[in-house]
Parts: sequence; structure tokens; C-alpha cells
Amino acid sequence: MPEQTPFDLRQRSTFASLVPVTIRYSDQDPLGHVNNVAIAAYLEVGRTELLGPLLEKLGGASLDTVVARLTIDYLRELRYPGTVEVGTRLVRLGTKSMVIGSGIFLGEACVATAECISVFFDLSKRTSTVPPAAIRTEIERLMREGA
Amino acid sequence: MPEQTPFDLRQRSTFASLVPVTIRYSDQDPLGHVNNVAIAAYLEVGRTELLGPLLEKLGGASLDTVVARLTIDYLRELRYPGTVEVGTRLVRLGTKSMVIGSGIFLGEACVATAECISVFFDLSKRTSTVPPAAIRTEIERLMREGA
Amino acid sequence: MPEQTPFDLRQRSTFASLVPVTIRYSDQDPLGHVNNVAIAAYLEVGRTELLGPLLEKLGGASLDTVVARLTIDYLRELRYPGTVEVGTRLVRLGTKSMVIGSGIFLGEACVATAECISVFFDLSKRTSTVPPAAIRTEIERLMREGA
Amino acid sequence: MPEQTPFDLRQRSTFASLVPVTIRYSDQDPLGHVNNVAIAAYLEVGRTELLGPLLEKLGGASLDTVVARLTIDYLRELRYPGTVEVGTRLVRLGTKSMVIGSGIFLGEACVATAECISVFFDLSKRTSTVPPAAIRTEIERLMREGA
Repeated sequence: MPEQTPFDLRQRSTFASLVPVTIRYSDQDPLGHVNNVAIAAYLEVGRTELLGPLLEKLGGASLDTVVARLTIDYLRELRYPGTVEVGTRLVRLGTKSMVIGSGIFLGEACVATAECISVFFDLSKRTSTVPPAAIRTEIERLMREGA
Repeated sequence: MPEQTPFDLRQRSTFASLVPVTIRYSDQDPLGHVNNVAIAAYLEVGRTELLGPLLEKLGGASLDTVVARLTIDYLRELRYPGTVEVGTRLVRLGTKSMVIGSGIFLGEACVATAECISVFFDLSKRTSTVPPAAIRTEIERLMREGA
Repeated sequence: MPEQTPFDLRQRSTFASLVPVTIRYSDQDPLGHVNNVAIAAYLEVGRTELLGPLLEKLGGASLDTVVARLTIDYLRELRYPGTVEVGTRLVRLGTKSMVIGSGIFLGEACVATAECISVFFDLSKRTSTVPPAAIRTEIERLMREGA
Repeated sequence: MPEQTPFDLRQRSTFASLVPVTIRYSDQDPLGHVNNVAIAAYLEVGRTELLGPLLEKLGGASLDTVVARLTIDYLRELRYPGTVEVGTRLVRLGTKSMVIGSGIFLGEACVATAECISVFFDLSKRTSTVPPAAIRTEIERLMREGA
């Protein structure tokens, strides 16, 4: 999966915008570093801050997205305290799903990258769904602009 | 407990310093707001950022603190996304423990207050302990300065 | 607060039922024990398993409860791996709120106790509310039976 | 990655042993189901219960493992309350790393599968390391026995 991304997710410059996420004491584990599970939570902040406004504006009450596959590459140990920045970028749009690439940075250093397959989801039917055309158009626009 | 605090923990001005904590999507629960458990994690960031440097500098390898009692008052619903600020202040110093007061703010609005009894803990003996005099002196100095 | 509870929350026999909660590796912190925040999550399992069926059956779509105050007393270190049991008991019923007492046990040993003030909450109005009479009656019945 | 696993991780029978993990109320998100991040925590319970005793017995004080890559396939929505079972199986042993396969089950239904590349890690040097021969021998034995 990650090999297919046409972007270098380890570079800050790959991402049009990055959002800060504060590391928490409780993110640490007995090895004295940030646990792998916390990294998954950081990635979700980046994805939802990119897609949330879009879904809220154009998706209607019953459209959201769910994660179908998540691949995380852990590149460096991360330690408390500190603030990371999470870059998120749309990689590919399918009929009912999209691929989203992420990079987590501590200053210039990339501590993790990830690829996520997010599926459009009908909250009332509880199944995957084809998003409305307005959402597709907006996502395609974001992709052209590198967001 | 909280009634005993001689400070108004609901006022930002009670705290000499506040640290930002980013709300995460996964902090939310099915009620569509930040779950009460996440608030406990925010508070711990404030406490450890206040005490961590002190313990690291003056405490030696085997001294840390553990929570003996935590009381949280939840004052308002908190929603994702956003960044809160956590104020933390030493309230009282005992022989083996101290009382720490906290306030969590979204802008000027106080969303939660808390009191924590933290006990000095010997990591090798796994018991409560009397901290070295240098730690006491520094904590008393911080308390006089309102930190 | 905890001093007001007319029950000894440190005794398993205080609780009519206890629910198991698995400790997770990621519940641990750098001190090599379960972090205080995870204990708050364990307590919530006990409270929601007691009240969830009641709210679902008698509460209607817009009634739930939120935490107004939570006091946790941490009595012993807890270590991974293992399974704790969480006892939960209704202590007092007010007009818009109730007091819930909890004990967390590892075998016979009590590792934490807690008191929680839970407020009935109208999900559509996002305010505290008086619960329907059927809920009050059922909670009073549970209290008489020691649940 | 997952395609390379020579086992069907969606079958309970693939796993010699499964460990229970209790779902928590706070694992849920606003979509009313278990959040993707919680699934990563469940998987870690399975991996650490398989490898922990081995590392403790044969690894010495400075050997542990860290996650280098984690791929999770989310197959079904999971809801609170309930208890899942996590199956974990060694898939491949390299010089400094191993591949671990997982399946999460609710009864017979598989809700997620995962592959994890875990790297042997020297806690004092904070780098990847070659594990002692006794660890390799034991892991190879476990793999022959299907654990």
C-alpha cells in the first residue's frame, strides 16, 4: 500500500497544511516513549480536520466516513512532552472510498507516515455508500490543489 | 476536597501558566462530545508539565509522583475540534504528598476544574516517600510565586 | 464526597454485580503501572453497563446521563496483564442527578474506589433534565435491591 | 503486506490461543461504534500477551520489541458493550524483526485482521537489535506449533 503513494509522505512539503497535536503523558508506555496506539489517534485528527468541514457542508446528516484499512509506518521514537504536526493529503478517490496519506512531524523530522483507506458510510443504513456529486467535485478540487 | 482550595480554579487568572492540549476526534463518545475520561488525560498534561522538570532536575532516578485522589468537576460540554488550555497550580504541600489544583479553559470559558492529591513515590521501593529537601524548597518557592 | 457514601466501596460484597474489564498494554505509563486515566475508563464501563439497559428501555431517544463530578481514590498500583472487576452501585437519587459508587477489584484486593455524580441529560436540548417517572421508579427499585 | 500472510487471519482456527479484551464505553466515537484507534489497542494486548512472557524469561532487562509497521483491516462495525477475542500468531522471523498476524473476533465473526512488523529493540541503546539465540529458538518453536 504505502509504496503506491505518488507522494513522499516523509516530507513536510508534501502537505498543504499541517495540524498540531499535543503529546499527552498518558500516550506513553512502559518503554518511556509514545505508544503505537496514540499515533493512530494523532493521524485521525489530521484526517478528520481535513474531511470534517467538507462532510458537514456537503454531506448531509447521514454521511460520514469509516476506516477500512490503515497502515502506519513508525519511523522514530517519539517522546513526551511535545507537539507534533500531522500532515494529511488526499491520494486517490474511488467510487465509494478514498486513499488518504499522512505524515507526522516533530519539527522537520518525520516520526511516522500512514495510508488510510476511508470508505463513505451511510449512518442510517450502516453501509458503505457512493457520496453525492458535490462531495466528489470538492474532493477532486482539493486533490488538484494538493490538499 | 475542591471546597478547600483557596483559589478560584474557574478563573484563568488563578494560573501563572497554562499549557495547550489539542482535543482529538477519538476523545469523543457517542454523545458527540468529549468523554469524561479524556478530561482526566488533559489534566495530567498540566500536572506533569509543571512537576516533570522539577523531578527530573532535583528528584533523582527513583523519585516520581503518583495520583492518590483525583476529583474532577465537569462544568460544560466540550466539543471537537479545538484546543483547550490547562492551568495547574500547587495548592498545598504535605510531608509525602501535595494538592494540585487545575482548570481547563476553552478561551475564557472554564470547562472543568480538578483537585489532585499527588504522592511522592519511590520507583525502586514502590512506596510513598518523603521527597528530598531540595524538592520541598523548590515547590515552596513555586507556591509563593503562584505556580 | 466519598466519605458520605453509606457503603464500604472497598468491599466486593457491597456490589450486587461486578463486570470484568481487561487491562490493556497501552493503559500503562512510564512508571510501569496502569495510568490513572485508564482507571477512569474502567469505572465508566461499570456505570454504563448498570444504567445503559435502563436508559435504553425507559429513557427514550433523547435521554442519557453525563458526568458532573467524579472522585477517584487510587488505593494500589495495578499492573498489566490482568482483568479487574468493576462493582457499581447506586448511592442516592436526586431530582436531576444521582450519586453512583464504584469499587475496582483485582481478586479480593480493592485497587480503587470512586464516586460519580451523574446528571440526567436531554440530548436534543443539551441540558440537564428531570428523568421520566418510570426511570425514577426503576432506579429506586434497583437501590432497594442493592444494585 | 497482509496478502503475504500464509494464514487466513479471518478464521478463529488460525490461532492456537485467543485472549479476551473487554470493549469500553470510551472506545466508542460519535458514529456510535468502536473507534479505529481502540482496535489498535486490542491488537497490542494479543501481541504482548504472546511475546511478553518470552521476553521476560529469555530477553534480559534491556530487550523489548517496538512496532515498525502496523496494517489493520477493519471488516465490520463493532459496538459496545461486549468482549472480543484477539488471536495472535507469529508469521515470519527475520534477523532483527518478526511479522505477527492477528484476528479480532466477536463470537465467530471476524471484525478486523492485522499484520504487524515488530522489531527487537535494545532499551538501553534505543536501537533495533539482534535477539539472543534462545529467543530465536523459542520463537521458531512457537511458529512450528502454530502459536
